[in-house]
Amino acid sequence: MITLIAPGIWKLTLGTPEALTPSGLADTTPEHVHLAALPLVDACPLQPAAITATSTPRGFQVRLPLQSTEQLYGLGLQLLSFNQTGLKKTLRVNSDPIADLGDSHAPVPFYVSTAGYGILVDTTRYATFYCGSANPVAAAGGHDPCGGLPPDAPVLDTDTLYAARKAAAYREVVVEVPGAAGVSLFIFAGPSLLEAVQRYNLFSGGGVVPPRWALGVWYRGRSDFTQEQTLAFAQQFRDERMPCDVFGLEPGWQTQTYSCSHVWSSRFPDPAALVADLRERHFRVNLWTHVFTHPTSPIFQDLLPHSGPYTTFGGLVPDFLQPEAREIFTNHYKKTTVDIGVSGFKLDECDGSDFIKSPWSFPEFGVFPSGADGEQMHSLFGTLQQRMMRQLYERNGKRTFGLVRNAHAFAAPLPFVLYSDLYDHGQFVRGVCTAGFSGLLWTPEIRHAGSGMELVRRLQSAIASPMFLVNAWYIKNPPWKQWETKANNADQLLPDWPEWQTKCRAVFDLRMQLVPYLHAAFHRYATEGIPPFRALVMDYPDCPDAHRLDDQIMIGDRLMAAPIIGTALTRTLWLPPGMWVDFWTGVRHEGNRHLDLPQVHENLPLFVKDGSVLPLARPSLHTEAAESFELDVRVYGNGALPITLLEEASPDAPFAADHVNLLTLSWDISRLVVAPVRYRADLSRGYTVAHERKI
Amino acid sequence: MITLIAPGIWKLTLGTPEALTPSGLADTTPEHVHLAALPLVDACPLQPAAITATSTPRGFQVRLPLQSTEQLYGLGLQLLSFNQTGLKKTLRVNSDPIADLGDSHAPVPFYVSTAGYGILVDTTRYATFYCGSANPVAAAGGHDPCGGLPPDAPVLDTDTLYAARKAAAYREVVVEVPGAAGVSLFIFAGPSLLEAVQRYNLFSGGGVVPPRWALGVWYRGRSDFTQEQTLAFAQQFRDERMPCDVFGLEPGWQTQTYSCSHVWSSRFPDPAALVADLRERHFRVNLWTHVFTHPTSPIFQDLLPHSGPYTTFGGLVPDFLQPEAREIFTNHYKKTTVDIGVSGFKLDECDGSDFIKSPWSFPEFGVFPSGADGEQMHSLFGTLQQRMMRQLYERNGKRTFGLVRNAHAFAAPLPFVLYSDLYDHGQFVRGVCTAGFSGLLWTPEIRHAGSGMELVRRLQSAIASPMFLVNAWYIKNPPWKQWETKANNADQLLPDWPEWQTKCRAVFDLRMQLVPYLHAAFHRYATEGIPPFRALVMDYPDCPDAHRLDDQIMIGDRLMAAPIIGTALTRTLWLPPGMWVDFWTGVRHEGNRHLDLPQVHENLPLFVKDGSVLPLARPSLHTEAAESFELDVRVYGNGALPITLLEEASPDAPFAADHVNLLTLSWDISRLVVAPVRYRADLSRGYTVAHERKI
Repeated sequence: MITLIAPGIWKLTLGTPEALTPSGLADTTPEHVHLAALPLVDACPLQPAAITATSTPRGFQVRLPLQSTEQLYGLGLQLLSFNQTGLKKTLRVNSDPIADLGDSHAPVPFYVSTAGYGILVDTTRYATFYCGSANPVAAAGGHDPCGGLPPDAPVLDTDTLYAARKAAAYREVVVEVPGAAGVSLFIFAGPSLLEAVQRYNLFSGGGVVPPRWALGVWYRGRSDFTQEQTLAFAQQFRDERMPCDVFGLEPGWQTQTYSCSHVWSSRFPDPAALVADLRERHFRVNLWTHVFTHPTSPIFQDLLPHSGPYTTFGGLVPDFLQPEAREIFTNHYKKTTVDIGVSGFKLDECDGSDFIKSPWSFPEFGVFPSGADGEQMHSLFGTLQQRMMRQLYERNGKRTFGLVRNAHAFAAPLPFVLYSDLYDHGQFVRGVCTAGFSGLLWTPEIRHAGSGMELVRRLQSAIASPMFLVNAWYIKNPPWKQWETKANNADQLLPDWPEWQTKCRAVFDLRMQLVPYLHAAFHRYATEGIPPFRALVMDYPDCPDAHRLDDQIMIGDRLMAAPIIGTALTRTLWLPPGMWVDFWTGVRHEGNRHLDLPQVHENLPLFVKDGSVLPLARPSLHTEAAESFELDVRVYGNGALPITLLEEASPDAPFAADHVNLLTLSWDISRLVVAPVRYRADLSRGYTVAHERKI
Repeated sequence: MITLIAPGIWKLTLGTPEALTPSGLADTTPEHVHLAALPLVDACPLQPAAITATSTPRGFQVRLPLQSTEQLYGLGLQLLSFNQTGLKKTLRVNSDPIADLGDSHAPVPFYVSTAGYGILVDTTRYATFYCGSANPVAAAGGHDPCGGLPPDAPVLDTDTLYAARKAAAYREVVVEVPGAAGVSLFIFAGPSLLEAVQRYNLFSGGGVVPPRWALGVWYRGRSDFTQEQTLAFAQQFRDERMPCDVFGLEPGWQTQTYSCSHVWSSRFPDPAALVADLRERHFRVNLWTHVFTHPTSPIFQDLLPHSGPYTTFGGLVPDFLQPEAREIFTNHYKKTTVDIGVSGFKLDECDGSDFIKSPWSFPEFGVFPSGADGEQMHSLFGTLQQRMMRQLYERNGKRTFGLVRNAHAFAAPLPFVLYSDLYDHGQFVRGVCTAGFSGLLWTPEIRHAGSGMELVRRLQSAIASPMFLVNAWYIKNPPWKQWETKANNADQLLPDWPEWQTKCRAVFDLRMQLVPYLHAAFHRYATEGIPPFRALVMDYPDCPDAHRLDDQIMIGDRLMAAPIIGTALTRTLWLPPGMWVDFWTGVRHEGNRHLDLPQVHENLPLFVKDGSVLPLARPSLHTEAAESFELDVRVYGNGALPITLLEEASPDAPFAADHVNLLTLSWDISRLVVAPVRYRADLSRGYTVAHERKI
C-alpha cells in the first residue's frame, strides 16, 4: 500500500511492520509549509511495482531497483566509507568501529541516490543493506561476461583479484530486516539528491538551529578538575585572550561514574556558584554524563522498576520509552543542574561497544518493561535521551545544545552533535561528509596531536564542522602548551608554547568570524532542510569527481573547505564548476577541475564561490561580545549572491523560526544594501556592518 | 528432551530445531570404541534443568549456567582473542577479520570450559554467544556493589574506565540463534577440558591423520610460473638441498580465475607430465582453486541448475548440498587433476568477505536449490567442499591433504588445514592455539618478512603448526633469497642470501626431524581426539598462568614451543608444572613458573618434558628419503615416558587406523627397547633406531 503523506514523500507499507518504529516514535511535526516550497513532484521516484518484498525465516527482505549510473550515500554516520555503492552494511549500533561493516555510533536506515531520491527503511532492527553488492545469476541470463580477469592473466596482488568482481556488479538494493514480518518505506523525492535530503530533514521536523554560543569554541577540561581549578582554568582563557563560549565538565563532577550517581562530587562544593561565576565570564557550562545508574544514586530505587533486565557498568539501564523513567531522570537533572543554569549535556556511552577489550552495554536480547528488546533499545537509546533532554529544556523555557554518542532516524531537529573516541583525522573529516546525508551533526573534536602542526590542522578541520570542540579531558593544560600527554600533566610546557597558542588562536578567530555565516546556514537547515556542512556530491551530484570526495566540505552554499589531513605539505583538491576565490589570497580559480596546492600555507584551504556576499564577524572572545555582531563584509566578483542573516531575541530561549529577525545583505552594483526580510521589535542585539570590501 | 547419545555425550533438544544442521549433515561415524576408552561420566556436566530457552521475534535464545571461576575457550578459529570469558561473539563467516566480533574464516558454535565440559550449539546460523558478558539486574538483587569505580576517583584513561565493568561480570552464557524456533545442544563431558575436546573430536569421527608427506615442507610458487618454470624451480630445491615434499600451483594453472574455469592454462601444455616429473623428484602437487565457476568453464551449463541465485566474482556458486553439483564438480576434477596424480587442493575464498574494499561472495539471503539460504550455505561452504574432495580421493583409493579457507563444526576428520591472507605474526600463532579447541587445524604460513630474522622467526613458528608452508605466490625467488617483493621479482637477490638460506634450512631440518613425532601425535588425534597442536590451558586448565597464554604451543604431549613474535631479542615464557629441558642446550628448568630468556638464541625456543623418549628423524630432503626413517632417539631424565610411533603401508592410500603398525620406544633403566604394539606385514617402510642419546 503506497500513500502520499507529504509533498514529494510517499509511504509504502510491505507486510506487517513491527509495532515499535522510528516514525511511530518521532515527536516532531513535519515542516509541511517548508516542504511545500520544494519543487513539485507528481510521481513516486521509484515505481512501487518495482519494489518487492519477501518474508523469510531470516526476517523480511525488500528489493529496490538501482540503475547502473546511480551512486548511493548515507546509512548514517559512516567513518570508514563514504560512497556506499557496491558495499554491504549491517546497521548495528556500536562505538569505535574499526571495520567497515556498518557498525556505527549512529547508523540510520536511510540512503540517498544521485538519481534524486531517498529511502528510509522504518525499522529499529539492525538491518542489512546490500547496496548493489549482490549479483543475481538471472540478471546476466546465467552468463556474466564482465566477470573474471582476462583469460590467462594471473595477477600478483589481491586488490586486482578482488577488483575484478566490480565490473560484474549488478544493480539492485536489497534490505534485510531481521526478525520482522514487514516494514514501511518512506520514499523521498528530489528531484535532486540534495532535495531528497531536504525533504527527509523537513519531514523530520527541520534541522536544529544551535544557539549562537554553541557555534563558538567549546573546551572540556581535565576530568578531575575541582570547582576552583575549573574557574581558574576558564579565567585563563580570558586572560590569555583565547576565545571560548562553552566550558565542559567531564566525569569528575559526579561522586560515582561508570555507572553514574548523577550527584555532584565534593570537588564541587557549590555548583550553582560555579555556573554563575562562569556565566558572568560569558561561559556556558556543559556536563558529561551517561544514563547508566549506579546503586548509590538517589534515583536508583525509583528507576529500578522502569529499567531493563541487564546492567551496564554495574548500573541500571533506564527504559526511556516509559514516561516514568523520563520523569524520574529529568526531575533529578532539572533540580540539580538545569535550574542552576547548566546549558546542556554530553550524553556519553549511549552506543555500546563490542569492539574493545571489555565489550560493554546491555545485550540485544533483553526485554525492557516497555516491551522493546535490547536491539531496538540500542537503535533508539541516543534518540530517546536527546528528546528527553530537549524536552526538559523546552519545558523550562530554555534552549540547549550538547553532545551525544548515538543517534538514529529523524534526528535533524535534535540539539546534539555526535562525537567519537576514535581519533583518526581522515575518518573525522569523512564523518562530517557522511553525517550530512542522514540529518546528523558530527564534530571532529581535538584532543591532542603528534606535533604542533598536526594540532593546528586538526583545529582547522573542526572549523568545517557543527561544533568546534577541544576535548582535553585527560590533560591538565591546553594542548597548544604541550601536546604530549605525560609532559602536559607534569606541567612541562613547551618552551615555544606562546607561538603555538598564537597559531591556534588564529584558527579560533576564524571560527569566531564565521559565526554569523554559520548561524545563517543553520537557519536554512531549519527552514529548507539543507545541511550546513555537507559533502560536495550533495551540491554537484552530476560531477563524477564528487562521487567519492570525502575530504572536502561545503559550509553553507558558498564556502568550500579542503582540510589538510595530518601534516601534509601539499594538497590536491577538486573545485566544483564555476569560479572559486581563495579565501586568503583572493586569487580566482576556474572550477570543475583539480587544483594542486604545491605548498600549503598555514591556513585552512578555504574557497569562496565567486559572486558571494560574505559577512565575517570581528574576532571576539565569545559570541556575546560586541565585536561578534560587527561585520566585515566581503563582496566577491559581481556580488550576485546575497546572504540572509539570522538575528534572535535571545540565544537561550527556545528557537522559533517565526520569532527571529532576518537580515539580507546584497550588493547593488556599487554598494552594500542591508535590508530586513523580517523584523521583530524584541531583538536584543543585531548585526552592524563595520566594513565592506570588494574582492 | 535430553538423551545420552555416546559415552559422556548428551543431546538436549530445545524447541523445534531447523531442518538443516551441522550434525544432520555430518558424514562421519562417531568413534564409539575410542569414546568408550575415556573416563566414565555418569551425569551430564550441566544440569539440564539449569539450561533454559526462549523463542523471541529475534530468534531462539538459550541460557546456560557459568561458574565465576570458569574460563571459556573455542568458538572456532579466533585470531583476535583467545580466552572468550566475558566476551560477545557473533559467529559470522568472514575472511580477514580485523575486529574481534566473532567473524572468522572458521567460526564453530562450540565452546569448552575449564570446568571440564564442552557445548556445541547445533546450528548453521550466525549465532551470538554472550560468554558471561550480559549482567542481569536481578542477579544482584537490583544492586551491584562491584560496579563502578571507587567513589570520587575519576580516571584519565579509557582502559581503566571500561575495565571497571569487569568486576561486575555476572556468570551465565546466553546464545542467540537468529531466525530459529529451536536448537539442539550437544553436551560433551570431560571430566577435564581436554577430555571434553577429545569427546568432541571423537564424536566428529576422530582427528585426521595427514599422509607423512604432508608433514614435510610445503612451498607454493609464483602464480604465473609456467610448466617449465615450475619444474626448474622445484629442481632448484633439490639442487640447493632445501627440503620440500609438496609443491603448490597458484591461480595461473587455470585459463580463467576469479571466477574459475577449472581448466589447465596453456602455460601447462602437459600437466600429466609435470605431475609425473615432480613425483619422480619426490614432490606432491597441490592445486589452488575455488569453486566459483566462470561462464567459460566446461561445467558451467551443467552446474547452472544446481547453483545459487547469486554470482560471486561473476561466477556460479554451486549448491554442494545437491549430489548433482558434487558429481559434476568432482567428475571434472577427477579427470583433469586427480587421475593424473594431483595430491590435493587449496580451496580458496570459500569464506567470503565483507571487510575489504570490494566486499565479495554471495549474499546471506539468497536461497539455493537445496533450500539452504546464503547464511546457512556460508556456514557450510568450506565443510561441504572439504567433504566432497575427501570423498573424491577416497573413491579413487587415495588419500589427500590440502588447504581451505572455511570450516565449521565436526571438522576434525577433514584432511584440510585453514589459512588466511591476514599476516600478523602474533595472530598467526594465536590461531594455532584457538583452532585446537574446535577440531580445526591452522597454518601460520610464511610469505615474506621485513627482515631475514623475521623470516626465520616466522618459519620457526610454523614448526609448531599442522602445516609448514611457504606461500610465495607473488614472488619469483624464495623469500630467503630476497624478502622484499619488488626486488625479489626483479631478481635482485640479497648479496648474503646463502647465509639466510642456511639459517632457513636449519628450520626446515628441524621440521623434518620432527616428522615421526608429529605423525604419532596425529595418530593420537585420530584415536584419542587429542589435538596435536594446542594451547597450554588444555593440558593445564587449573593453572591460572595458562588461562590467557596464547603464544605458547604444546606439540604432542612432550614438546612445548614458545615462538618469538617478530624480531624480539628477549622472551618471557611460562613453563608448566614439572621439569622441562631446553631442547637445544639440555639445561633443565623447574616448571610452574615464568622463565626469562634474556638473550634469545637463533633457534625456536623449545622445551622437552623431562622423562620423554623423543625420536628425531635424520634431516632429509623429503619424507620418502631413507634418512627420514632413521631415528636419533633422545632419552630425557628417567625416560619414563615412552612413545608410540606410527608406520603406514603407503602414505597415499586412505588411512585406516586398524591397518597400521605401531611401534613403541621405551627406556628400560639402561637401554632403549623398540617393540611393536601392533605389526602388519604389508608395511612398506619402517623406522630404525640409528642412534640413542641420554640427556
